[in-house]
Amino acid sequence: MTLTKGLYAGSFDPLTKGHLDIIERAADLVNTLYVGLFVNPQKQGLFTMEERFQILQESLRHLPNVKIILAEDRLLAEVAQELEVAVLFRGLRNPEDFSYEANMDYFNRQLTDGLETLYLMAEPALAPINSSRIRELIHFKRDISDYVPTPVLGMVLKKYENE
Amino acid sequence: MTLTKGLYAGSFDPLTKGHLDIIERAADLVNTLYVGLFVNPQKQGLFTMEERFQILQESLRHLPNVKIILAEDRLLAEVAQELEVAVLFRGLRNPEDFSYEANMDYFNRQLTDGLETLYLMAEPALAPINSSRIRELIHFKRDISDYVPTPVLGMVLKKYENE
Amino acid sequence: MTLTKGLYAGSFDPLTKGHLDIIERAADLVNTLYVGLFVNPQKQGLFTMEERFQILQESLRHLPNVKIILAEDRLLAEVAQELEVAVLFRGLRNPEDFSYEANMDYFNRQLTDGLETLYLMAEPALAPINSSRIRELIHFKRDISDYVPTPVLGMVLKKYENE
Amino acid sequence: MTLTKGLYAGSFDPLTKGHLDIIERAADLVNTLYVGLFVNPQKQGLFTMEERFQILQESLRHLPNVKIILAEDRLLAEVAQELEVAVLFRGLRNPEDFSYEANMDYFNRQLTDGLETLYLMAEPALAPINSSRIRELIHFKRDISDYVPTPVLGMVLKKYENE
Amino acid sequence: MTLTKGLYAGSFDPLTKGHLDIIERAADLVNTLYVGLFVNPQKQGLFTMEERFQILQESLRHLPNVKIILAEDRLLAEVAQELEVAVLFRGLRNPEDFSYEANMDYFNRQLTDGLETLYLMAEPALAPINSSRIRELIHFKRDISDYVPTPVLGMVLKKYENE
Amino acid sequence: MTLTKGLYAGSFDPLTKGHLDIIERAADLVNTLYVGLFVNPQKQGLFTMEERFQILQESLRHLPNVKIILAEDRLLAEVAQELEVAVLFRGLRNPEDFSYEANMDYFNRQLTDGLETLYLMAEPALAPINSSRIRELIHFKRDISDYVPTPVLGMVLKKYENE
Repeated sequence: MTLTKGLYAGSFDPLTKGHLDIIERAADLVNTLYVGLFVNPQKQGLFTMEERFQILQESLRHLPNVKIILAEDRLLAEVAQELEVAVLFRGLRNPEDFSYEANMDYFNRQLTDGLETLYLMAEPALAPINSSRIRELIHFKRDISDYVPTPVLGMVLKKYENE
Repeated sequence: MTLTKGLYAGSFDPLTKGHLDIIERAADLVNTLYVGLFVNPQKQGLFTMEERFQILQESLRHLPNVKIILAEDRLLAEVAQELEVAVLFRGLRNPEDFSYEANMDYFNRQLTDGLETLYLMAEPALAPINSSRIRELIHFKRDISDYVPTPVLGMVLKKYENE
Repeated sequence: MTLTKGLYAGSFDPLTKGHLDIIERAADLVNTLYVGLFVNPQKQGLFTMEERFQILQESLRHLPNVKIILAEDRLLAEVAQELEVAVLFRGLRNPEDFSYEANMDYFNRQLTDGLETLYLMAEPALAPINSSRIRELIHFKRDISDYVPTPVLGMVLKKYENE
Repeated sequence: MTLTKGLYAGSFDPLTKGHLDIIERAADLVNTLYVGLFVNPQKQGLFTMEERFQILQESLRHLPNVKIILAEDRLLAEVAQELEVAVLFRGLRNPEDFSYEANMDYFNRQLTDGLETLYLMAEPALAPINSSRIRELIHFKRDISDYVPTPVLGMVLKKYENE
Repeated sequence: MTLTKGLYAGSFDPLTKGHLDIIERAADLVNTLYVGLFVNPQKQGLFTMEERFQILQESLRHLPNVKIILAEDRLLAEVAQELEVAVLFRGLRNPEDFSYEANMDYFNRQLTDGLETLYLMAEPALAPINSSRIRELIHFKRDISDYVPTPVLGMVLKKYENE
Repeated sequence: MTLTKGLYAGSFDPLTKGHLDIIERAADLVNTLYVGLFVNPQKQGLFTMEERFQILQESLRHLPNVKIILAEDRLLAEVAQELEVAVLFRGLRNPEDFSYEANMDYFNRQLTDGLETLYLMAEPALAPINSSRIRELIHFKRDISDYVPTPVLGMVLKKYENE
C-alpha cells in the first residue's frame, strides 16, 4: 500500500515558515495532504479562525496537492478517519515535548485502529521559530517578515489599523 | 508522488520485537521496504553478520514486500540513494537520543539533496526492549522469548552449544 | 525501622489505570497506604471532589490497607506529618517532569525534617495514560474503558445525562 | 507487608558522599539494607574489588543494619532474589538517564515477578558528585576530601605510593 | 572589547536566593549590571511591582555596581539596546527549559544584531528554589527565610497583616 | 571588574564551523581569548595534536586577540588558573549534555575558588555539526566543506594521500 492521503493539523496562530517547511516536505510524500485548522477552545487566539484560514489559503497556493480544511473543535482522530487519511504528519523541534507526542501518538493509534503519525525533524535554522514568539513580536510591533509567509504580514497590518 | 520504497537500517544484534513492530508498521506504508543490516566496525558484536542476516530472513518471511540487504560498513545515505528509496524509517523510543537523531536527519538530508526520515513512535509496551539488554540476558542465560522473534532463540541455543 | 505508613497524593480528575497500578504496587510496600485527594484551587476540574472521592472509594475497595482521605487545598508536607507517614509515593512516567519532582522532593524534605519520597516507574504500557487526555476523550464522548477503572464509567454516564 | 530487606547496588569506583547519602537514607527505610558491589567486566576500574570492598566496610561501619556483599559479575535480579529482598534502591541525579532506569526497572520486574525499585532523589548539593569525576581528580592529584568518605583518602594515598 | 554593561531580567515575584546568587556572580563580570524588573501582563502576581522593586532595592544594596530598572511590559531586546548593554545574563537550573532559552537567545540575537546571552549554571544547592514554590509556601504561611533575602520576609508580614 | 581573559577548551578533532562561531563570539567579549587544545588520552583521535594545532592556527588568524595553547592531558581548571583567565566559555547545542555541563561547572568552581563558565547558545543552523560526524564523513570520503573551516580540507587531503 502506498501513502495516498495525509493530514497535518495545527492551530496556526499564525502560520510560520517552520509550519510551511513541514507542509512542503509532507506534501511531497503523499498524493493529497490535508492541512487541518483546529482550534483550542480554552485558548484565546490572536487571529480569528477566518484570518488563519485565509492566511493558509494564500500561503499554500503553490502546493497543488494541499487541501485546507476547517476542523475547529473536533477530535483529530475522528477528522482523520472521515478524511480517510493513511497518516498524520508532525514536525519535531525539540526533545521537551517528546512525552506529549508519544502520548498523542498512542491515543491516535488506539482511537482509530492504528492511524500512524509520521514525525519529520524541523530544519535546524527554522527550529527556534514558533507562533507564540511571533505573537509577542506582533504585540511589540517588530518586523516578523523573516519568520512568517508574506500573507501573515498583510493580516498583521489590518490588525494594527483596527486598534 | 507516493512513497514507493523505504529503508529501515540497523545493526540488529539481535533483532528484537521492538524492531519487528517498526518494520511491520513501516512495511504497511510503502510498496517495498528495505531492511538494511549495517555494521559498526568499532563495536564487537555478539552475533556474526551471517547470523543476524539469517535471523532477519526467518523473522521477516511473513512480510512479502520486505527485502533484506547486507550493507555492512557503508554510509547510510549512499546506500539509500543506490536503492532509490524515498524515505528512511526510524523508531523513536525516548527523548534522550533526540539530538542524535536530529543530527543524523540533518546530515542525511544534506548528503542526498533532501532524503527524508520518517520517525515512528515505539509501541509503549515494547519501548523498554533494546538489543544491549537482550545481549546481557543471553550472557546470563535467561529466557528472552518475550522480547525477540523466535528465530533468535534457535541462534542463541547454537551459541550456547559452541561455548 | 520498617515502613508502616505511606501517602500517595493526587487530584485524580479522574483516577486512571495508571494511578491504580501505582496505588496497588505502593500498597504492597507498607502496612497502611493513604491515598490523598488534593485539589488545585487554580484549576477548574471536570469531576467534583465528591465524585472523585466516590470513584476512589469504589475503585480501591479490593485494597484493604488503603485509606482515602480528602485533603483539598492543604500543603502535602503538612498532611503527611499529621498522618505520621514515613514516606510519600510518586509514579514516574517520563523525564520531562524530573525537575518538578526534584523540586517538590527537596521542599518536602526541608519542610518536614526529612520526609522521603519513593518514586516508582510507571508500567510502560500504562505510561501514556493521563487524566487530561481522558478528560478530552470524555469531552468528545469516546470510549475510555481501557484507561480507567470501571467506577469512572458510571460517573461519566451521569455527567452526560445532566448535560 | 512491610519492607524488611532492600538492596542498593553499584560499582563504587570509588564510593562517594552521594552514594553514602542514598545508603543512609535507604537504611532508614528497611530492617536490613544490602549494599551490593557489582563489577562491569567490560570496564577497567581504578580501584580493585578488594579496595572498593574495604572502603565500603570502613565507610558504612556506623550503619548497623547495612550488610555489604560482593556480587561481582552477576545479574542484579538474581542476586536480589537470592537475598530475598523486597525492593531495590536507586538514587536519581538527573533526567538524562531516565530511559536507562526505566529500562532496568522493567527488566528487573520482568525477571523476578515484580521486584520493585524505589528511586530516591539525590540531595541537590551532592548531585554533581560522581565517581568518574572523582577518578579524574585522583589522576590529577587534587584534593577530593569534600566528595568522598574518609576511607577513600587512605586508599588513594596507597595508590600514589605504589606508582 | 571588554564587557562593560550587562542586564539580568526577571519578574522577581519574589526575588529568591537563587536569583541573588546569579546577580552577585554576574555583577562580578561587568562594570555595571542592570537588574531589570519585567512584568508578564498575562500573569496575576503575588507582589505588586512596587513591592518587588522595593525588595530588589533593599536586597541589592551591597552591590555598588548594580542598577535596578523598572521595565514593566516591554520587549527585553529593546530595553537592552536602550541601555547599551553588551550582554544579557541568565541562570540555568535544569535541562527542561533548554528549548525555551535557545528560542529566546535566537530572537534576542536576531532583534538586535547579535546581542549575546551568557548563561551561568545555578549553584546546585540553590537550583531547587523557584518563585512559584515560594509563593505556595507563603500561601500556606510557612517559614521561607532559607530561600529568600531578608527584605522579602518583611514584605510577606505586611501582606499577612492586610489580609 | 571587566572580563579581560577567557578560555575556550576542546579537543578539536577536527575544528568545525560550530566551534569557530563560538570562538568568534567569545573573542568579542574579552580582551584575550585563549583557545586551549586538550587531549583525552583514552580516545584515539583522527588528527594528531600537531595537525589540530596547525588547523587552529590557520583558521583563527583573522582573530587578533585569540591565542592558541597546547594543553594536552592537563586539568582544565589548573590551566585556567595559570593563564589567569576570568572565565571559561562553552557552547550549548542541546539539552542532553546539561548534566555533564552542570557537573563540570560545579567542579571547575570548586577547584578554583569560583572560576565561572559562560555558556553561549549554538547558532541553530550550526547546532547539528559535530566533530564525530565530520570524522565519519571523512572516513567515507564525502565533501565536508560546508561544515569545517578551509584549513581542515587541506589536512584531510594529506591524510588521504598517506593512506
